[in-house]
Amino acid sequence: MGRALADALITSGHPTTVWNRSATKADDLVARGAVRAATVEAAVLSSPLTLVCLLDYDVTEAILRPAADALRGRTLVNLTNGTPTQAREAEAWAVGHGAAYLDGGIMAVPSTVATSQAFVLYSGQKAHFEAHKETLEALGAAKYLGADAGIAALYDLALLSAMNVMFDGFFHSVAMATSHKESNAAGFTELLVPWLTNMAQVMPAFAADVDSDAKPVLAQGLDVVLASVRNMAQASRDAGVRADYFERSAATLEKQLAEGQTAYTAPGVVQRLRTSN
Amino acid sequence: MGRALADALITSGHPTTVWNRSATKADDLVARGAVRAATVEAAVLSSPLTLVCLLDYDVTEAILRPAADALRGRTLVNLTNGTPTQAREAEAWAVGHGAAYLDGGIMAVPSTVATSQAFVLYSGQKAHFEAHKETLEALGAAKYLGADAGIAALYDLALLSAMNVMFDGFFHSVAMATSHKESNAAGFTELLVPWLTNMAQVMPAFAADVDSDAKPVLAQGLDVVLASVRNMAQASRDAGVRADYFERSAATLEKQLAEGQTAYTAPGVVQRLRTSN
Repeated sequence: MGRALADALITSGHPTTVWNRSATKADDLVARGAVRAATVEAAVLSSPLTLVCLLDYDVTEAILRPAADALRGRTLVNLTNGTPTQAREAEAWAVGHGAAYLDGGIMAVPSTVATSQAFVLYSGQKAHFEAHKETLEALGAAKYLGADAGIAALYDLALLSAMNVMFDGFFHSVAMATSHKESNAAGFTELLVPWLTNMAQVMPAFAADVDSDAKPVLAQGLDVVLASVRNMAQASRDAGVRADYFERSAATLEKQLAEGQTAYTAPGVVQRLRTSN
Repeated sequence: MGRALADALITSGHPTTVWNRSATKADDLVARGAVRAATVEAAVLSSPLTLVCLLDYDVTEAILRPAADALRGRTLVNLTNGTPTQAREAEAWAVGHGAAYLDGGIMAVPSTVATSQAFVLYSGQKAHFEAHKETLEALGAAKYLGADAGIAALYDLALLSAMNVMFDGFFHSVAMATSHKESNAAGFTELLVPWLTNMAQVMPAFAADVDSDAKPVLAQGLDVVLASVRNMAQASRDAGVRADYFERSAATLEKQLAEGQTAYTAPGVVQRLRTSN
């Protein structure tokens, strides 16, 4: 990922200095015009803006510690994956060393960095973001989320969670479809991708219901949803596919019906996911 | 849904006869040129092709039984939601009364019927599908899946399952994002929809791995996936959101690592979902 980020900066014409624990990994970047720094400190001192993208926050802290004094008066943008708490701690550490700090979450894989599909989430002081926005746009659309350094990591992990669950559903549906001897995963997936893409267009209406205090617009009957989930569980079992997920969903819906609830709404579902509920 | 289907047929210029248990529900269709049948039998006798879309297969059987003799020599297309087993039973019933049978699954909501987003899955004898394909295309792109009458219902329920799980992931991610005071569901969803849409583009490559006997192309380290799932669980708990889903996923991945597995691949995940595994 670090290579893809540096490559995007070079391509967009920004003078770029690179450092990696394995120095030779930067050979192709150097061939394309990057300057290789011998130490992290030298890399930091070469520019007003340092981007960091490493395995995790522990590695980041260990690598930046020897260069802490060099960061004074400069901006550190940390694109390493982590939790909101880790992002806030990293900001406190950077500010403690006189540096400006932005936390970032890259919503792309290395091959899509700097394409129209890529976007990068940022949080921290808005002035720091504005000062470097043009440079950061080289990596992908730059989305500023707020002054709390932790919010980019929160959104990053929320987006990854939704993707993770979507893929689990994909695997389940492929297991169902390919249980049939006249089927294959590729043919089924040709139908699935446009189907999910179309259905995702409903999400903004669900989101509006979540944000609103008014009666939800998209209410379904709990009994109708339960019948549909039971059908999915039955069809899974009939296809020789584990149905635990849908059996658990059905049990949850049955419990709500027994409690006297009748409507299935987005705010209702989101509220029940909160542990304070 | 029945009204949307009849409306699509009228719009595309097909002479259409309608019947509903509540006769007045067809008033607007009649005003647009449809013929109202007094009985199901009269509706069936008015055309070589009968489309049925009802609450479930029990209702369908009860409504068609009195018109069974009228179906002889005609084609019945059953667009009612049900399981593959129910579809095969309905085909046997129709064939037993001398009718040609196709089972169908409508991948649309009433408002998207006959739009470019809609598609309808069909299964049964191919000759029956070919004979009526042009008419059926009026409802949305017609996709023929195979001679087994049950496969359209299987694909229908598999697609609905994937959608259901995707929405569960959406609700979870919204609960995480909106735990932050500087956040709202609408703003988060503006990022989520393109993110999921982009990530769904990976599915055909996963599907190719599932269909292939060769070494999977898209292998990830099980330990890397586990670290990421643990991060999602931790971030959910920190945000006051139930983490059961990700905790269960983590436990499954830990078990696989303990068994000596090292790679996370699509064929591996799909195989573990099979109860015969």
